Amino acid sequence: MYKLVLMRHGESQWNLENRFTGWKDVDLSDTGREQAWKAGQLLRDQGFEFDLAFSSVLKRAIRTLWIALDAMDAMYTPVGLSWRLNERHYGALQGLNKAETAEKYGDEQVLIWRRAYAIAPEPMSADDPRHPRFDPRYAKVPADQLPATECLKDTVARVLPFWNDSIAPAVRAGRRVLVSAHGNSLRALIKHLDNVSDDDIAQVNIPTGQPLVYELDESLKPLRHYYLGDPAEIEAAMAAVANQGKARK
Amino acid sequence: MYKLVLMRHGESQWNLENRFTGWKDVDLSDTGREQAWKAGQLLRDQGFEFDLAFSSVLKRAIRTLWIALDAMDAMYTPVGLSWRLNERHYGALQGLNKAETAEKYGDEQVLIWRRAYAIAPEPMSADDPRHPRFDPRYAKVPADQLPATECLKDTVARVLPFWNDSIAPAVRAGRRVLVSAHGNSLRALIKHLDNVSDDDIAQVNIPTGQPLVYELDESLKPLRHYYLGDPAEIEAAMAAVANQGKARK
Repeated sequence: MYKLVLMRHGESQWNLENRFTGWKDVDLSDTGREQAWKAGQLLRDQGFEFDLAFSSVLKRAIRTLWIALDAMDAMYTPVGLSWRLNERHYGALQGLNKAETAEKYGDEQVLIWRRAYAIAPEPMSADDPRHPRFDPRYAKVPADQLPATECLKDTVARVLPFWNDSIAPAVRAGRRVLVSAHGNSLRALIKHLDNVSDDDIAQVNIPTGQPLVYELDESLKPLRHYYLGDPAEIEAAMAAVANQGKARK
Repeated sequence: MYKLVLMRHGESQWNLENRFTGWKDVDLSDTGREQAWKAGQLLRDQGFEFDLAFSSVLKRAIRTLWIALDAMDAMYTPVGLSWRLNERHYGALQGLNKAETAEKYGDEQVLIWRRAYAIAPEPMSADDPRHPRFDPRYAKVPADQLPATECLKDTVARVLPFWNDSIAPAVRAGRRVLVSAHGNSLRALIKHLDNVSDDDIAQVNIPTGQPLVYELDESLKPLRHYYLGDPAEIEAAMAAVANQGKARK
């Protein structure tokens, strides 16, 4: 039996400000740093050790990983980084406040943009300075693979090759793996692992900074999964994520 | 022409306490963290960018690298870790205060242990709990390669394969490389790069947390090297390193 731990980054500055973040490289808030430290302590206290960790190339996921590894006294863990673990690209919505967008377009339209499996927001234009082609960290990604917007279906399509080529082989080789990533890139992994339908995946809300343990059989089919932390805390955190896109609480 | 940047970790808690550190995994002092941040700022201000970074598996080098990459806003830089970049293993001396050891054995004996190219201190015994074979980060290193003590010659012998197999090929492939390591593993690299004699290498004192830039020709022969920081500060820092092994200042 294999164990794989998934972890959504701690609260970011833009989670806090309730803005569409996507590929914008915002940092953790102070709460996010505390969550990451707590996640590392929890993993250490429960006896988890890792041979390998993966993260997106966005600093909120990398810092979450760094802080958690520090708390585990395991900073020597090798880390593999990939743009394929990045958050879903939010296109032209990137930077807009979720509640303001909801007041302008209505809760329903925002929910479609946030949760419809195959409908992407308007793309960012190719000469927009926020376009990933201007960012040196993506210099080696083929231009036709760099997104300017994504629906979750698109995110799944670019996350899965990294699962197949990097994460799954490591797990199968018996390496204990920790993945630090984002709400939607983790949805993509969970959709694949648990074979969740296109409709149902929108209802899967992943709280920030809570280690999510998957126990997998030899063919990497999940036997069960569970969050490590306090159940009431996790319930509240999931509800908070679900409510982010509404105009008022 | 290639550029390679070497960086000795910032001041550690045991540099501060003037103790023989070796493979003991001590953390940076507050000053060490500030040095690392300053080093990153210096690199950023002077336009340095890196495609790849390397570090030892000891946290004082890893944290120095993490802080410097953070200051450069380049946390997405891939990092390769290797035990071969670790500090020289100090054997049975590990943990002893340098000045106390000098008062007990005399400045000359301590200088021999610290600086003689081919004379190693007494080894740590194989059942000493501090022996690296008990540390999970070395689990995959063949037991006969794990040191229980080292002279600088031994350190050179285990650093060079990593230079040949990992760092040099990356530099030759045009990748801009940053190496975060230790006084003696960096001496090993410098000895090789600049072809320094066994006698002279003892006089090469590398200050903590100061980026050292090597410009290399196509065959990786150094054209010149220089520290990035303020010359007077670097001079003082090198003198401080040279004086550490003396009983009184």
